[in-house]
Amino acid sequence: MSLPFLTASSRIRRTPFSRRVEAAGVKGYTCYNHMHLPTIFRSVEEDYAHLKSAVQVWDVSVERQVEITGPDALKLVQMTTPRDLRRMADDQCFYIPIVDHRGGMLNDPVLNKLADDRFWVSLSDSDMLYYYMGLSNGFGLNVEVFEPDVSPLAIQGPKADELVRRVFGSDVVDTRFFRHKTVTVEGEEMIIARSGWSLQGGFELYVNGSEHGEAIWDVLFEAGADLDVRAGCPNSIERIEGGLLSYGNDMTMDHTPFEAGLGKFCHLETATGCLGNAALRKRQDPVRQIRPIEIDGGKVPSLNTLWPLKDNSGDPAGHVSSAIWSPDFQTNVAIAMVHKAHWAPGTELTVDAPDKSRSVRVRDKFWI
Amino acid sequence: MSLPFLTASSRIRRTPFSRRVEAAGVKGYTCYNHMHLPTIFRSVEEDYAHLKSAVQVWDVSVERQVEITGPDALKLVQMTTPRDLRRMADDQCFYIPIVDHRGGMLNDPVLNKLADDRFWVSLSDSDMLYYYMGLSNGFGLNVEVFEPDVSPLAIQGPKADELVRRVFGSDVVDTRFFRHKTVTVEGEEMIIARSGWSLQGGFELYVNGSEHGEAIWDVLFEAGADLDVRAGCPNSIERIEGGLLSYGNDMTMDHTPFEAGLGKFCHLETATGCLGNAALRKRQDPVRQIRPIEIDGGKVPSLNTLWPLKDNSGDPAGHVSSAIWSPDFQTNVAIAMVHKAHWAPGTELTVDAPDKSRSVRVRDKFWI
Repeated sequence: MSLPFLTASSRIRRTPFSRRVEAAGVKGYTCYNHMHLPTIFRSVEEDYAHLKSAVQVWDVSVERQVEITGPDALKLVQMTTPRDLRRMADDQCFYIPIVDHRGGMLNDPVLNKLADDRFWVSLSDSDMLYYYMGLSNGFGLNVEVFEPDVSPLAIQGPKADELVRRVFGSDVVDTRFFRHKTVTVEGEEMIIARSGWSLQGGFELYVNGSEHGEAIWDVLFEAGADLDVRAGCPNSIERIEGGLLSYGNDMTMDHTPFEAGLGKFCHLETATGCLGNAALRKRQDPVRQIRPIEIDGGKVPSLNTLWPLKDNSGDPAGHVSSAIWSPDFQTNVAIAMVHKAHWAPGTELTVDAPDKSRSVRVRDKFWI
Repeated sequence: MSLPFLTASSRIRRTPFSRRVEAAGVKGYTCYNHMHLPTIFRSVEEDYAHLKSAVQVWDVSVERQVEITGPDALKLVQMTTPRDLRRMADDQCFYIPIVDHRGGMLNDPVLNKLADDRFWVSLSDSDMLYYYMGLSNGFGLNVEVFEPDVSPLAIQGPKADELVRRVFGSDVVDTRFFRHKTVTVEGEEMIIARSGWSLQGGFELYVNGSEHGEAIWDVLFEAGADLDVRAGCPNSIERIEGGLLSYGNDMTMDHTPFEAGLGKFCHLETATGCLGNAALRKRQDPVRQIRPIEIDGGKVPSLNTLWPLKDNSGDPAGHVSSAIWSPDFQTNVAIAMVHKAHWAPGTELTVDAPDKSRSVRVRDKFWI
């Protein structure tokens, strides 16, 4: 089946980098937080090989920020996550599951602490701004909650450190994993964090002010010309190999953090301010959980709906939520939600892919 | 510029009708409430001519429902809208602006009352479920809030009444505008309303249970074969001509209902339970407002970002949010947010369209 076109409107927002992304020859998009997220430049496979060998600049403006500022800021964020935030340092970034009162996942952002009373929640794909506004209004909290004009630009790949060194200096390269520093770019203070949605290493610059987007893009491309810097984007092959989950694909509101394999971020004894705490205590022993799986039978078609897993009696065993052919591992790498009876590594199952039935093996770890 | 492709994933959800929509030759999509919304079948212009002369079946599953049930249901909905809901009848549908505590618009759904303690909020494009959950948690309300498995299917066009008569009977055709009746389809009770996002007349069937989607689709196409029933979708030309606003395009959180021209739905004296009431009282006299405008200079290109309006001194006068060539009116029909100094009918302005600067005239009404 050929890919459908994405129709133009202003409701799916352009980004501060859209013109540069188009000039770089973007071929596909998805929509994410009511905004354009590039998905393909040359081809998914060519982009993948380049990401693993050089350095890419990614327009990840879709990681919209919810800024929460004020005396009750920490209290409000803690209401939404079972991860204990009390010891978070001022320069720290936390990956946090966000849950509702039933313990269902609403988002899995990176939380950036800017000060004791100021946070940025760097979102995956859902309108968390609405949830924070609702809670803030309902509990009468002393906070301001809004979406600032901040658009992350990721610099990812094995040569990301070198590019960042050239543009921002060695001090920035010394930033520890999931910590951020402040840099002055185009006369504006911005934070840059050692983070990003790949396992190839790199940084995310939180571009503060849309008007600076193109100038910063150009600086990075000029400085990295001999590093073969290219426009890139989160790569499905690389992120599935690495086990980076995608909210809305691999887990939704129907899943707890335990089911999503994020139990280590649930500090139920201490994060008592989380509104989902009581519900999560009852849901600590999941009967289904995310597993890396390998799918046989040659290159799988594009996944656009969950593919059912079956055991060897033909009974339901879960579903596949992400799957793609990996050139490096010469197999189909995939993420699945697997029932407890079948989730042991080595278990053989069957998946009803759109083209045919295929054999599947549960793995003990992702391709890392 | 050629249209970009929309990349496959399960995060942008398929609908109960997706296979039928594909079989009907859908050519373009947009994303709306994390779901696929068809935008083109034959061409936007051919679809438009057909919508105005025959009958179409639209997959508008993207109008996701938030179900609010329980003793505090009315109280919760009223918190979010300045429209007075007290006299709403049990079979009534209300178009409501939804606002935050600052009076900014969060959505403009159709609210369906199912019982005194049960509502469906039939959404435009934002995660209102999150706002309702946040408010409900914060205020400790006695309600349940969730997204039911309900997917609207619209039947629109001048021959919609005839098709509905054949399938659902004359009693349903007698339904008044923005009222609903209950029908039993595929053994399931469903509501059907005289409503829809066109000015051509018709109904929306709230398909209750995804498993019934294809069977219902097929029944409509069999019954309407001699009416030239076709798969269709909301049509940009028809909806702009008719002045149907699109949330995210024509108004956003940055606009009040007064700015969006929805002042008649703001009952500030009586809807005192609305959390935005106090803010809206201070914002009743807008300095910018939505206006129908006509754009000269031949067929405009696709609009994918707001186009700035200028007065004859070159000063900012607002922006165009939706624009397209109308074959029936032989002009570019458009929706703009226009500053007060320039919003009088007949005012001449200039718009910076992507291809060239064009003359613009403010109109007194839409093309109806």
